[in-house]
Amino acid sequence: MLRFEITHTDGAARRGTLALPHGVVDTPQFMPVGTVGSVKALAPDDLLRLGAQIVLGNTYHLMLRPGPELVAEMGGLHRFMSWPGNVLTDSGGFQVYSLAEKRRISEEGALFQSHLDGKKHLLTPERAVQIQGQLGADILMCFDECPPAQADRAHHVAALERTTRWAGRCKTEWQARQGSADGAGALFGIVQGGLFRDLRERHAQEIAALDLPGTALGGFSVGEEPAVMWEGVQHAAPLLPAGKPRYVMGVGTPEDLLRCSLAGADLFDCVLPTRVARNGLLFTRQGRLQIKSARYARDPRPPDAACSCYTCRTFTRAYLRHLFAAQELLSFRLNSLHNLTFYLDLMRDLRAAIERGESRAFADQAIEQFRAGPD
Amino acid sequence: MLRFEITHTDGAARRGTLALPHGVVDTPQFMPVGTVGSVKALAPDDLLRLGAQIVLGNTYHLMLRPGPELVAEMGGLHRFMSWPGNVLTDSGGFQVYSLAEKRRISEEGALFQSHLDGKKHLLTPERAVQIQGQLGADILMCFDECPPAQADRAHHVAALERTTRWAGRCKTEWQARQGSADGAGALFGIVQGGLFRDLRERHAQEIAALDLPGTALGGFSVGEEPAVMWEGVQHAAPLLPAGKPRYVMGVGTPEDLLRCSLAGADLFDCVLPTRVARNGLLFTRQGRLQIKSARYARDPRPPDAACSCYTCRTFTRAYLRHLFAAQELLSFRLNSLHNLTFYLDLMRDLRAAIERGESRAFADQAIEQFRAGPD
Repeated sequence: MLRFEITHTDGAARRGTLALPHGVVDTPQFMPVGTVGSVKALAPDDLLRLGAQIVLGNTYHLMLRPGPELVAEMGGLHRFMSWPGNVLTDSGGFQVYSLAEKRRISEEGALFQSHLDGKKHLLTPERAVQIQGQLGADILMCFDECPPAQADRAHHVAALERTTRWAGRCKTEWQARQGSADGAGALFGIVQGGLFRDLRERHAQEIAALDLPGTALGGFSVGEEPAVMWEGVQHAAPLLPAGKPRYVMGVGTPEDLLRCSLAGADLFDCVLPTRVARNGLLFTRQGRLQIKSARYARDPRPPDAACSCYTCRTFTRAYLRHLFAAQELLSFRLNSLHNLTFYLDLMRDLRAAIERGESRAFADQAIEQFRAGPD
Repeated sequence: MLRFEITHTDGAARRGTLALPHGVVDTPQFMPVGTVGSVKALAPDDLLRLGAQIVLGNTYHLMLRPGPELVAEMGGLHRFMSWPGNVLTDSGGFQVYSLAEKRRISEEGALFQSHLDGKKHLLTPERAVQIQGQLGADILMCFDECPPAQADRAHHVAALERTTRWAGRCKTEWQARQGSADGAGALFGIVQGGLFRDLRERHAQEIAALDLPGTALGGFSVGEEPAVMWEGVQHAAPLLPAGKPRYVMGVGTPEDLLRCSLAGADLFDCVLPTRVARNGLLFTRQGRLQIKSARYARDPRPPDAACSCYTCRTFTRAYLRHLFAAQELLSFRLNSLHNLTFYLDLMRDLRAAIERGESRAFADQAIEQFRAGPD
């Protein structure tokens, strides 16, 4: 189901291999987000070309449309979307709190109305594991309660206590399904606690006690300042079991990925690179490039001369600016291809730096360059 | 600049090769439309993979954004959009009549306001040829006056007389540019006359007298019934110079392409296959497939089992239906890829049938199948 091996360490940073049912994932690794069963604007062959090893699917979105039963009938999410690599599914919890209407949380689970058609759904820890099994996830996430960014300490305490109880119920359901057709995935626990260090410490112990195959940090990158998030992850990552993969959920910018990897995190996911791509923001080794800027109207250079993606090998900034200005569909694909290539190449280069024992210097230099901004 | 050779005839149908500056075009051929400098949702490598040999660019759109001077500075439209094949540009006339605001036609040309920003532009026969030269077109079209669908005979007479005078001015401008950097393209005349047979005959003679490298039929597929259009093209195509390529502008459905090819037409362009793809309509050898239909929700088959495109090789109807329902960007690309593959494969199979002297039987059978509708 999962075999995690740390091949190199460099300070707190780790370079590892995570063997999953659909191939090996090199860590630290970034997972593109395929919300509704496609990484927006990209096809599976695009993802293979840019070197993606694992993508994320959103349980909330997929349970509403097309529904887990249909996906299971079509052979699971991999076959449904023709993706040969690995899939991690979230538990649906985060979207229930951020997207759904009229949600009511009880000990049983979360009752909510779909943001699509107002239909009522009940998501419980057991149901979240069942659905992720039907989707055929290689990594499943425990159903958790994520307090809003501005929640007070008491709210955080209640949420993490419930998250621990729910994680126990998730584990029971997951164990009951092992050996069945959709029981091949590995279940990860989620550590909450917001920015309260003692709560993170307490919750890390509670989740570790469940002895699940991997651990995630939830509740980061939910509105706090970047430096605050970095400090939080630097504190919390070492609290998680050292021999198991550590996943920081919903993170982040290129700088976030570097800083959290240096703190000992192994996996990341975020809609940022594809979302900003559709808004015309390109990441380059020289910083952020707003492709709509008039300064690129006649620029014959690729977005990033050091990038080997199809976009950079083929098109000029001038053309990409034109496509974006005209809101041509091709713009969204070419920009997304580039940003995801940038992210995955950054992680690849970071892994090599960890192997050489130079991850700190690599990260410092990369972060410096990102801040400069391109010509 | 252009070498056209008819290698086979079969009734009025012709199978030929049209050698242009960016490669040989096999005729009859369909040209995907790249309105604003990209065939919507597709990249140049997609177009190469599906076998496109020539695409159409819209002078009206490109003159407004990003402007012909910018395209020329970036090395012409081929280099700007990284398209190694041929480009035919229209004259801009049709869009001035259909899209622009507050247009005023005079003998000099058409004064109009951009539909984007209301800015005033003057498009004259000379300017249309200049712009198409700046774009670097392999085939340029004369600036014509296209009467609206409901125009009366007097309007048609005035329009074709003006179109003839304008074609003369286009030829003069085009000849003056030969030998210059942007003078490598071949200029085609346009025959108007609506559904008035005697006007088509008269105008075909007037345009033929200019002895341009190719001839187009304008003013078809502007709202008339298909059967009326087919009859019009069957009458008008044989009036055009037999040894030169014949291009029926803005046509059409798969059935239209077959019927007009059988009437002796060689080139076609239309936004239809890509536009309807974005609306979820897929063409198959068994007819039209509305991918949003609930009957495909669990259908594990590709849209068209006989199609070799990436979409049909990779995805199920169930997944394509889901992508369309979720309005995922990937839906637009996959559907467009398929429909254009269908169009180009249809033309390839038609060419083979002409070579065998079986074009009539091929067309009859294909049209029969299209009308059946898929399972």
